[in-house]
Amino acid sequence: MKISKIEHLGIAVQKIEDVLPYFEGVLGLKCYKTEVVEDQKVKTAFLQVGEVKIELLEPTSPDSTVQKFLDNGGRGVHHVAFKVEDGVSEALAFCDEKGIRLIDKAPRNGADKLHIAFLHPKSTCGILTELCEE
Amino acid sequence: MKISKIEHLGIAVQKIEDVLPYFEGVLGLKCYKTEVVEDQKVKTAFLQVGEVKIELLEPTSPDSTVQKFLDNGGRGVHHVAFKVEDGVSEALAFCDEKGIRLIDKAPRNGADKLHIAFLHPKSTCGILTELCEE
Repeated sequence: MKISKIEHLGIAVQKIEDVLPYFEGVLGLKCYKTEVVEDQKVKTAFLQVGEVKIELLEPTSPDSTVQKFLDNGGRGVHHVAFKVEDGVSEALAFCDEKGIRLIDKAPRNGADKLHIAFLHPKSTCGILTELCEE
Repeated sequence: MKISKIEHLGIAVQKIEDVLPYFEGVLGLKCYKTEVVEDQKVKTAFLQVGEVKIELLEPTSPDSTVQKFLDNGGRGVHHVAFKVEDGVSEALAFCDEKGIRLIDKAPRNGADKLHIAFLHPKSTCGILTELCEE
């Protein structure tokens, strides 16, 4: 598996509009896009910092996994997404071979036109980990 | 405040040697340095991914804040560090003016020859946030 960079950090928030003043007004980043991802029951907002995107995740439904993360006391970084250079399918097969627990057995569509798949935090040092490619 | 990139992600782990097989053997990253930071009661290990460092943090004492984070059920990303281009002191003054709660009133020495200061997660969307400069 060849990882070239951290593609984005997913950050769980209850309301995007409540936290934008911090990200824009204090950190000086700029929100350049919002997008609803029906599949994941979230509204997302993207800000760029260097080569990494910050993806704010606001649940759109009480049964969104992001709402559950917040309800269980989760705060801040919800997941870390790595950009893989050799394909998400190939990366999943490699991880499976290495005994890593997979959440997704095959890539699916994520926000921002990415193919994505998640690895289970039990196998990844407690970090919900996404692999993605454009 | 001018932030140029995410300098590093601090990741809390109980034992660095237990997680290196994942970071090196699965993600394919390379640990290029380890360092004990007496001040913060942690042993650190650094891996590079793109322009961002991953800083593994292993507590060296039961009263390390990283040990407390782990004892309280914290897993994975412990803090996010942004590189500031206009000085940590200046950035702290700016944050203070904006009403952000500061953990450090002045920069101190961190791992990897950085000047660092922490902002309180209560003011930063639940993310323990470090500002740093070389």
